[in-house]
Amino acid sequence: MLEVEVKGWVTTPEQARAVEEYVDTWSFIGEDNQEDIYFSHPCRDFAATDEALRLRRCNKGTFLTYKGPKLDSVSKTREELEIEVPAEIVQILRRIGFKEAGRVCKTRRSFGKNDLLLFIDDVQGLGRFVELESTAGGLPRARELLEILKSLRLRPERRSYLELLFSSDG
Amino acid sequence: MLEVEVKGWVTTPEQARAVEEYVDTWSFIGEDNQEDIYFSHPCRDFAATDEALRLRRCNKGTFLTYKGPKLDSVSKTREELEIEVPAEIVQILRRIGFKEAGRVCKTRRSFGKNDLLLFIDDVQGLGRFVELESTAGGLPRARELLEILKSLRLRPERRSYLELLFSSDG
Repeated sequence: MLEVEVKGWVTTPEQARAVEEYVDTWSFIGEDNQEDIYFSHPCRDFAATDEALRLRRCNKGTFLTYKGPKLDSVSKTREELEIEVPAEIVQILRRIGFKEAGRVCKTRRSFGKNDLLLFIDDVQGLGRFVELESTAGGLPRARELLEILKSLRLRPERRSYLELLFSSDG
Repeated sequence: MLEVEVKGWVTTPEQARAVEEYVDTWSFIGEDNQEDIYFSHPCRDFAATDEALRLRRCNKGTFLTYKGPKLDSVSKTREELEIEVPAEIVQILRRIGFKEAGRVCKTRRSFGKNDLLLFIDDVQGLGRFVELESTAGGLPRARELLEILKSLRLRPERRSYLELLFSSDG
């Protein structure tokens, strides 16, 4: 599956209000507490190859996700493979050399409209973000999602939450 | 979980008959068609470290298993971590550098008695084997299992089916 995704910072109360007003016409899907563990590869630098292996524990269960390199320079479009797994997979991952590289905890509110998803993420240690996601279309769709971010006056951010947590301005 | 396990070759019709007679007083658990895919590690020589990562597809589902190095010189006792996973985990394993190293297909009949398990395995390309397994006890238990093999006049074999398939006498 190809995930077309853009993300923007919510930094002012005005932006926060604009986002809430904007999603008012969307369907509220639910609220989820997500704990994401990112793993480092035993012999590959995931930061350099722009890949990620993530274990997400959330209200719905435990999910293992592989994210491939981003495919264009404006959005976060990338290959994403996700499966539900037992939480005990952590032990197997450790045995075969994968180490915990970082943890991202957030509360995510999800909204849907047509084939789009909008997430309002409150990320521990970072603040509030809006993510827009589409499973249909490629780069043209990514530009459309960026237009929505722009109309909400949100600054686009291509870096992951993990990268932001580890960076100086994060 | 620590898996205490021994294995023996069934090479003559007399041995085969002796095994069938021996398990006559055990409970028949079931028959299972198992396809095992073994993976090579992207940067660790599993043959040298005596570890294994296996995906088993069988009647009961798909299982991912990590096997640690053997812990003694007589039995196949080793750490074993096993979880049920969706079959699509193969794609994630490939993306993170694990390659298919070999495949073992077998029909397994399982029998139980007290805390022991006995398997009669018909392995494609190798022939018939008896495996004895106990989840209780360590090395003393392993010796007891070896005694059973001896009483059935079966030649003990510490190598895995995969090793045997790749070796000259396999």
